[in-house]
Amino acid sequence: MKNALYAQAGGPSAVINASAAGVIRACRRSGQIDTVFGAHFGVLGALNENLIDTSPFDDATLELLKATPAAAFGACRHVLHDLADDPREYQRLIDVFAAHDIAYFFYNGGGGSAHACQAIAQASRRLGYPIVAVHVPKTIDNDLLHTDCSPGFGSAAKYVATSIREASIDLASMSHTSSKVFILETMGRYAGWLVGACGLATEHPNDGPHLLLFPEIPFDETQFLHQVKETVERVGYCAIAVAEGLRDQTGNTLHATGQKDAAGDRQLGGVAPLLAHMVTQQLGYKCHWAVADYLQRAARHLASATDVAQAYAVGEAAVAMALDGRHGLMPAIRRLSDVPYRWDIVGVPLDDIIQGDRFVPREFISASGLHLSEAGRRYLAPLIAGEDAPLFKHGLPQYFRLPHDRVPKKLPPFQSPLTSRVQCQV
Amino acid sequence: MKNALYAQAGGPSAVINASAAGVIRACRRSGQIDTVFGAHFGVLGALNENLIDTSPFDDATLELLKATPAAAFGACRHVLHDLADDPREYQRLIDVFAAHDIAYFFYNGGGGSAHACQAIAQASRRLGYPIVAVHVPKTIDNDLLHTDCSPGFGSAAKYVATSIREASIDLASMSHTSSKVFILETMGRYAGWLVGACGLATEHPNDGPHLLLFPEIPFDETQFLHQVKETVERVGYCAIAVAEGLRDQTGNTLHATGQKDAAGDRQLGGVAPLLAHMVTQQLGYKCHWAVADYLQRAARHLASATDVAQAYAVGEAAVAMALDGRHGLMPAIRRLSDVPYRWDIVGVPLDDIIQGDRFVPREFISASGLHLSEAGRRYLAPLIAGEDAPLFKHGLPQYFRLPHDRVPKKLPPFQSPLTSRVQCQV
Repeated sequence: MKNALYAQAGGPSAVINASAAGVIRACRRSGQIDTVFGAHFGVLGALNENLIDTSPFDDATLELLKATPAAAFGACRHVLHDLADDPREYQRLIDVFAAHDIAYFFYNGGGGSAHACQAIAQASRRLGYPIVAVHVPKTIDNDLLHTDCSPGFGSAAKYVATSIREASIDLASMSHTSSKVFILETMGRYAGWLVGACGLATEHPNDGPHLLLFPEIPFDETQFLHQVKETVERVGYCAIAVAEGLRDQTGNTLHATGQKDAAGDRQLGGVAPLLAHMVTQQLGYKCHWAVADYLQRAARHLASATDVAQAYAVGEAAVAMALDGRHGLMPAIRRLSDVPYRWDIVGVPLDDIIQGDRFVPREFISASGLHLSEAGRRYLAPLIAGEDAPLFKHGLPQYFRLPHDRVPKKLPPFQSPLTSRVQCQV
Repeated sequence: MKNALYAQAGGPSAVINASAAGVIRACRRSGQIDTVFGAHFGVLGALNENLIDTSPFDDATLELLKATPAAAFGACRHVLHDLADDPREYQRLIDVFAAHDIAYFFYNGGGGSAHACQAIAQASRRLGYPIVAVHVPKTIDNDLLHTDCSPGFGSAAKYVATSIREASIDLASMSHTSSKVFILETMGRYAGWLVGACGLATEHPNDGPHLLLFPEIPFDETQFLHQVKETVERVGYCAIAVAEGLRDQTGNTLHATGQKDAAGDRQLGGVAPLLAHMVTQQLGYKCHWAVADYLQRAARHLASATDVAQAYAVGEAAVAMALDGRHGLMPAIRRLSDVPYRWDIVGVPLDDIIQGDRFVPREFISASGLHLSEAGRRYLAPLIAGEDAPLFKHGLPQYFRLPHDRVPKKLPPFQSPLTSRVQCQV
């Protein structure tokens, strides 16, 4: 029996480890895979032969892993060269696979790692050690093509929708004599799925959030200020969610523009404080703002049960595809119906996945451009459904800790010729 | 039988409505109080005779109220004059009490409303309509004297401790190639209880948060940067929690100083982005930051069961004190033991409450000034214990909505001579 390697890539999510648990359990159940190794810090862990043996993980440990946010095995941002340009990293990966008898590679990440997964699979064929590589989808940005949603998104969406609901009623309760406006900044540099999900908190017409600012809709300061004023005068207060990547009419992010307007690097805030400043200066309303940052993607305490189930299922499905020899695929979620939400999993060729990103379509956004449409609501609602709380101890969620033991190395150290290319992006 | 008036004051919390439910249920159970009215938007609602009749609230509604964050009846910030200076607002309150046959007044708030509660009680005696006024404690800042803790604090504490734990492992998982530092800004302008509570997330020595910046400890930039660098070199990353009110050696908040350094009002961020900027400029580490703002005080989805129980209990106890004719009191929580946490409720004279604020004592802070001491941990740990989730529907917590009906007014409108004194503070 051959072994498998599981690696995590890119920005973490609240449920990526549920996919890890799905992969590990499915491998064990198959009877066709011996050991599942985890790469410590993603593909860099594979290159450096930093492997973790998951065999000692008992069922309780796998349950804990499943309920743990962030990339428990460690992830990285690292871009592999094209094979034709420089084969050395691919050769090293093949050497590590061969040294540890690894025939299956599961790469859990977003669009970039789908590309890398495909490149590694193809290189392994050219270099004479064909491995079966399957990509396991993950991204809180929900911008992967050809899947109903991306595991990780639903939980972040549930967190931001809950947060803006709670903050909106907080704002409402003090609006008579205190702040009139609250702004929550969500992640989303290009695609506005998370800011859109905030709109699910609006159940009745006057509920917050009253305005959603999508990166797909160019920001119109005049319209925005008018809407804020109209909402405060009508409802008494105005709750707003804004995507970090909000852009002006010329396509520049407001954040970047703000930085330029202020004295160089003195402008330290995100887009939320910038809008708060605008509201206070132009309308005279006292304004509060929050930037959730990592909190939204790590909020396993408020995970969507649907999201956890899907993350686990794509992990299991990846193993089934691999054992069928169906490499170069990504298990994708296919929606069968909205209400009740029914879905299954299909294999999508990675060549399709890596063709492009997926933005919020105009028909999911209301006519004004400032809230969800009914179609958008229908799409998003099932993705945040259900609760899946982690174990709490002493009042705090208990999370998995990676053991310190590493698999003994069999190869000499690898001096990556490409170390300088390790990307330290956001 | 006489009626009672319940009013909410100041910044909301996740559990102030649990106190409301405790007051309403205890009044009903007593058989000695007829109707419990709620004041819409606090003492201003009382002045303007905007009253809500809680009699139609059935048990399910009261359960929903108990599990709803923010001030469900609406709160305000409004400072009453001294009676000697201007008796008109007091006279109006007495008129409203008399018109609606109100003999009991329950005022749910922090230090300011304890003062107001006492003033109203004393004025009612001087003006010949003696009411029984009891203050019900509430503040997420935990800065009330003579009570083990303030209802509302435990839930905010549980939220920030959970958030920094989740964000810390997110940071850890990407630290190999991405951000090395994460900073969470908590509320706390003068007292560092919430930033201290973040320290509960540190279970093992290398766990985040690694540094806590208390407003009680003057900020030392050199020591801070040294500690960040040392932590990143030792652990691989550094997670930090900072109180919004962090002060420099001269007692100025860093936030205010930052505003002065930058071009006037161009500095829009809080203290977290300011420190992030410092870390990036001085140490070259990529840094992420979050400002939780209202999210932390409204996070009923992550309430502390201990906090909910205490909030409910002080509401009930306030009614018991009122019925005993023990006015001018606040039901306070008395700690009987740390482990297991046992507490009861005692009546504390309001004159004692309003004497001062309560800061984190030096012995609750580690020798370095940058983390909790064991004593601090022992004090804080029980306050976040236990979970008390609200009802979820369609993936989101369901919260109480105030009915639109108001009690018919019996008095002419009140033109407050003091309207200009309504305070629009944070």
